[in-house]
Amino acid sequence: MKTAIRNVELENIIDEIGKLDTDTILLVVDHQIWSHYAKDLVIEKIENKKVIFWKSPDGEKVKNINDFQNAIEFFLEKGIHRNAHLVAIGGGAVSDFAGFVAATILRGISWSVVPTSLLSMVDASIGGKVAINSKSGKNLIGAYHMPQNVWICSKFLGTLPEVEKASGMGEVLKYCFLDYGIYDLAIKKAPIEQIINACANYKQKLTDEDFKETGIRKILNLGHSFGHALEFIYNLPHGEAVMWGMVLVFKIFGSEKNINDIIALKNALNIPGKNPPWFNKEFPIDKIMTYLQKDKKISALSSIDLVMVNDIGNAQVERKTFEEIQNVLETNKDELRKFTL
Amino acid sequence: MKTAIRNVELENIIDEIGKLDTDTILLVVDHQIWSHYAKDLVIEKIENKKVIFWKSPDGEKVKNINDFQNAIEFFLEKGIHRNAHLVAIGGGAVSDFAGFVAATILRGISWSVVPTSLLSMVDASIGGKVAINSKSGKNLIGAYHMPQNVWICSKFLGTLPEVEKASGMGEVLKYCFLDYGIYDLAIKKAPIEQIINACANYKQKLTDEDFKETGIRKILNLGHSFGHALEFIYNLPHGEAVMWGMVLVFKIFGSEKNINDIIALKNALNIPGKNPPWFNKEFPIDKIMTYLQKDKKISALSSIDLVMVNDIGNAQVERKTFEEIQNVLETNKDELRKFTL
Repeated sequence: MKTAIRNVELENIIDEIGKLDTDTILLVVDHQIWSHYAKDLVIEKIENKKVIFWKSPDGEKVKNINDFQNAIEFFLEKGIHRNAHLVAIGGGAVSDFAGFVAATILRGISWSVVPTSLLSMVDASIGGKVAINSKSGKNLIGAYHMPQNVWICSKFLGTLPEVEKASGMGEVLKYCFLDYGIYDLAIKKAPIEQIINACANYKQKLTDEDFKETGIRKILNLGHSFGHALEFIYNLPHGEAVMWGMVLVFKIFGSEKNINDIIALKNALNIPGKNPPWFNKEFPIDKIMTYLQKDKKISALSSIDLVMVNDIGNAQVERKTFEEIQNVLETNKDELRKFTL
Repeated sequence: MKTAIRNVELENIIDEIGKLDTDTILLVVDHQIWSHYAKDLVIEKIENKKVIFWKSPDGEKVKNINDFQNAIEFFLEKGIHRNAHLVAIGGGAVSDFAGFVAATILRGISWSVVPTSLLSMVDASIGGKVAINSKSGKNLIGAYHMPQNVWICSKFLGTLPEVEKASGMGEVLKYCFLDYGIYDLAIKKAPIEQIINACANYKQKLTDEDFKETGIRKILNLGHSFGHALEFIYNLPHGEAVMWGMVLVFKIFGSEKNINDIIALKNALNIPGKNPPWFNKEFPIDKIMTYLQKDKKISALSSIDLVMVNDIGNAQVERKTFEEIQNVLETNKDELRKFTL
């Protein structure tokens, strides 16, 4: 099933939910969003439907098996059925989590998302990858479950903390390397709504072509293998980690032009920060290697697929052995420690 | 992907696993099966593969979120990847559970099953429905995840307890109503291997046509809506509960011929027991109605789809309101209390 991505005004979100073809709504809302926007999301306006409301704890914390169990048991206990529809309103953590609930409750019910963070509007809410976290790493327990609707409302960005805006921009930066149209919008400093729509539709196109990520969809992982490791090691926001993951892969396997493009785009998109998280510290090769080997994207015991970019809009997947990666990190560790953008 | 269903000798199971196209095997084996057959399943014979072994606790008990979490964290911690392959050896509970692990670990890896109970050979291991249980009912948390291989070895029936054999026969009885060929084999008292293959291939055909159960696959639920309620209320083995679920749906919405066919087939298949679980007790209408309304097969708040059989090989789905079901149970409760096969 294809996802309908549409822009919607804040005051019309409840109307859209009311029009869904079901008599039962499972509504999962981020608790911060609820504290800011409850007055704009008047559930009582939804007529002739049973609405079961579950307020989600803060951010990434919700993506664990206990909350998964709590939410599922709560909805089942309230009485739902296969034609019920789940609606997630929140950032990427909430849609990852709620989407996994939708994927597994009664073996899967339909769902829709209202992404409220920049990261989620351009990336997390699109494409049906849903998951919770494991002790061994992020997003290691999950499913592919395409949402029916993604309703984008940029008004939510008004209350998004600066650090999360910057994090979202890290993913925007990634798209700029994958698609020349998005690169062009960024360099021209187009309005953010225009950039969001371009990113969301680009990702949707790729995921429609390759839902289960056996081919072209893999290029969306640019910066992510190292990014996930950095996110874990330095406790960074996801998009920021992806940006430094891209920097790292470009430094060790890419070109000078890759790095110059990052600097130009970073300036155009107003992304702060020039020093990598490992700047002037010991470069954490062992931790990175341990984490890489648990990455869910590895497809053999001895190697991993990394995304490389020849030029803007020209990315491809290259298989690298762990030995090769370890060697090049060892060789470059002193230079990496001193490097800044 | 289509499942390859094949008969395999006990001594060749390990060879089949060894031939799988992967370097990493997640092996989930029922602990009872392991205690009987460890000498026939010599894991060390699998060459050039990493084998991660997880022994599963007894029967239905494993189908809970805690064991799900334990197994997933265990496999992830040992280090696996997307091309790893899970093999489940055990009864229906083990394949339901292990299949759900395979469906969700790293967003889904391929898997194969060696069903060791009659119930699993004819039903549970076929068709890719995988699940664990919720506090609100059985199999309410799950996925559709087709196995790559089902390797049937009837030798395992040699150590299957009689009560489980009878339970498996309850599902065989169900197939007899759905397919004239299987009915004919049962009435002629064909060898059990032949009946197993006919049931497994019949189910595979239906699930290939309708994987997500939006149409024809629904007829496989004959006896199951009431059966799941009876299984829960009286703590019955699954197949036995399905048999009494069929008896109940035939008694209140079916024909005299349905009941006569059940009796003839029950005799031909040597299924013991003439008294329903509610015999001479108060008929548990409230409990049944409460349970039915939580059944994952309901698709609206006020009704449920029940499978009815006009004649052998001619089944169809009929929507019944809960009110209608409650009324007919109330009207017939005194007769039901006294009824025996």
